[in-house]
Amino acid sequence: MAYILQVDFELDGPFGQEMAEEFSDLAKSINEEEGFIWKIWTEDSEAKEAGGIYLFQSKESAQNYLTMHTERLKQFGIEPVNGKIFEVNETLTQINNGPIK
Amino acid sequence: MAYILQVDFELDGPFGQEMAEEFSDLAKSINEEEGFIWKIWTEDSEAKEAGGIYLFQSKESAQNYLTMHTERLKQFGIEPVNGKIFEVNETLTQINNGPIK
Repeated sequence: MAYILQVDFELDGPFGQEMAEEFSDLAKSINEEEGFIWKIWTEDSEAKEAGGIYLFQSKESAQNYLTMHTERLKQFGIEPVNGKIFEVNETLTQINNGPIK
Repeated sequence: MAYILQVDFELDGPFGQEMAEEFSDLAKSINEEEGFIWKIWTEDSEAKEAGGIYLFQSKESAQNYLTMHTERLKQFGIEPVNGKIFEVNETLTQINNGPIK
């Protein structure tokens, strides 16, 4: 059973390639988190928002990551953080080619 | 360039296999939407919420879908709908194996 974690928050920047350079080490570290499968990094430079869509192997690992990540963002001066964890409906997701492996 | 659409809303049900049976025709129709790449169907039967994570080929196609889908959900008696569209940061997403094809 796979779980989606969706996270978003207000961000003044950086965006785009500058964001990629600043956060590449953080991205590499995320690959080591317990239960982590993948992350899509999201950004909106006009609305000044950013976040991520994550796939985790369990609800517990998603919740543990969200708790840690919310605290980390707070140390960067970023709060509040909108975070929601959902179970994946696998039958419907397969119809729509959703990547849940 | 790929765009993420994240959608969530309050839902009394159905969830799980019952949801899958009720919405399989809707899921098939979504495969025909302009610019659509994939959808992951999300649900939380305890919090009574559901939604989806979509990948679209353009911001315009994601926005057009969100406008149509929000109206459709309203006809089902579901509102408000939380919908956000984000650009994908491809460099960081590749580090974390994010499925953006």
